[in-house]
Amino acid sequence: MATDFKRWAKDRQARIETFLESRLPAVDHVPERLHNAMRYSVLGGGKRVRPLLAFAAGELAKADTKRVIVTAASVELIHAYSLVHDDMPCMDDDVLRRGKSTCHIEFDEATALLTGDSLQTLAFELLAEKCLADSPETQLIMIAQLARASGSRGMAGGQAFDLASVGKTLSLPELEFMHIHKTGALIRAAVMLGARCSNHLDEAQLERLDHFAKCVGLAFQVVDDLLDAEATTETLGKTAGKDADNNKPTYVSILGIGQARELAERLQHDADQVLDSFGDSAIRLRQVTDFIVKRKF
Amino acid sequence: MATDFKRWAKDRQARIETFLESRLPAVDHVPERLHNAMRYSVLGGGKRVRPLLAFAAGELAKADTKRVIVTAASVELIHAYSLVHDDMPCMDDDVLRRGKSTCHIEFDEATALLTGDSLQTLAFELLAEKCLADSPETQLIMIAQLARASGSRGMAGGQAFDLASVGKTLSLPELEFMHIHKTGALIRAAVMLGARCSNHLDEAQLERLDHFAKCVGLAFQVVDDLLDAEATTETLGKTAGKDADNNKPTYVSILGIGQARELAERLQHDADQVLDSFGDSAIRLRQVTDFIVKRKF
Repeated sequence: MATDFKRWAKDRQARIETFLESRLPAVDHVPERLHNAMRYSVLGGGKRVRPLLAFAAGELAKADTKRVIVTAASVELIHAYSLVHDDMPCMDDDVLRRGKSTCHIEFDEATALLTGDSLQTLAFELLAEKCLADSPETQLIMIAQLARASGSRGMAGGQAFDLASVGKTLSLPELEFMHIHKTGALIRAAVMLGARCSNHLDEAQLERLDHFAKCVGLAFQVVDDLLDAEATTETLGKTAGKDADNNKPTYVSILGIGQARELAERLQHDADQVLDSFGDSAIRLRQVTDFIVKRKF
Repeated sequence: MATDFKRWAKDRQARIETFLESRLPAVDHVPERLHNAMRYSVLGGGKRVRPLLAFAAGELAKADTKRVIVTAASVELIHAYSLVHDDMPCMDDDVLRRGKSTCHIEFDEATALLTGDSLQTLAFELLAEKCLADSPETQLIMIAQLARASGSRGMAGGQAFDLASVGKTLSLPELEFMHIHKTGALIRAAVMLGARCSNHLDEAQLERLDHFAKCVGLAFQVVDDLLDAEATTETLGKTAGKDADNNKPTYVSILGIGQARELAERLQHDADQVLDSFGDSAIRLRQVTDFIVKRKF
């Protein structure tokens, strides 16, 4: 990975951290336990893949970084809320996340439930802040897009489909359907919302960008499945090997490791091809895609 | 209660039902179980107090009813999501709501969790629809207002405060603080969002309306506590006497039934006084307030 990209990513990760730190309610603000749990679940961890994609798309669209930070943070809050709820006993029942105890272990189940709820709300509160796009009409479109990506026909729907598929045999198209919703929808939203922070791109360009984002979303999940099968709990920061233990269908269980790795590379290739029409201004998007496919955690 | 008001309320309740029916995802849309649970948790029940307040405030502001329906529905979806999550075993652990099994009993805990999550998301998706106010800027303000009212410094925060206060003795100001957040914030949002569907009211009028809404929100909770202490599970449609069983501080446990009833009437009187400056156009708001204070369920 280019040193230049590492520096860029580190800078953007630091900025999103500082911003989230400033917007999450203070721990001494009543109810303290809830605010403590919200900060615990969001700050100090995570690869911030969605914010990096939003930043990279924002640069492609020549958007004001200050706008992109708020937008990227709102997408990351949706992601963080989904992790807190997914880890709860009635869902994946996990104890480890980002190398720390999960929220319901560190606090309690009721607090974890309210933490996820409140992080989702905060995402929409941020995205309704003044002037995040060239027009307030565009900003309403961004809010609607984040909502659709997160709800029952997006991320939450994918999670429901995932729960229903435990112990079942899924076909490859069914597995793809699940992941297009469960992880793909929010990754697409990150790219599209970052790009919509300015009116620089026309509709045809936004459509191409959306196609790019679909490839990246799927690649992300294929790599996730590979890492779950190959990595250790220590490098992963979350329980490894859970998919096989839970009898969950994954790209690895359906395709095997070799073919799953090939699929990830093919998706990266497709994503890169879509970016060709944007020329050099898509460099960060290429680099983030490469980071997603090559990552070891 | 005037026949005229009954007819008006019935008409608005029917309209909000039809609208929610049309916007909740169909049961045959994947994931079916989740969509089934969402519809189960929202449709065919409830007094629709928040939508009625939004409609009444919308009439005061001479707002287009079509806008108010969408806005009222988004507030009701937030309310419905909070009920689904509050009833879960890790929170109030209740089995009965609106005369039916609660969501996690009828379906399962994981589905109830995702149902609440998805209803919240749908609320913001609706509120980001085109042209719900005279300007898109106002609509962004409405979204931010609903988010603040629902999140950790509003409704969810009140719920966290409530959980932390079980078995404790609260002072009257502490109890008021809790309820201003837990139920008051969303009731205020219902009134204010209904009014903001048009630019008819000026800032000073909106401020008075907000003061009215605060009184109504508190009156609503005092009456809720009275009903929990006095009514039966059958008339209530949810488990009665739960507050005392759970050792929860309420207006009744702190003030006794007589003084709590007096407080509700005083709050109604205060609310009515604020409306004086609006003249006859506030008639529906007066009637909804009366309905809230006099209700038997």
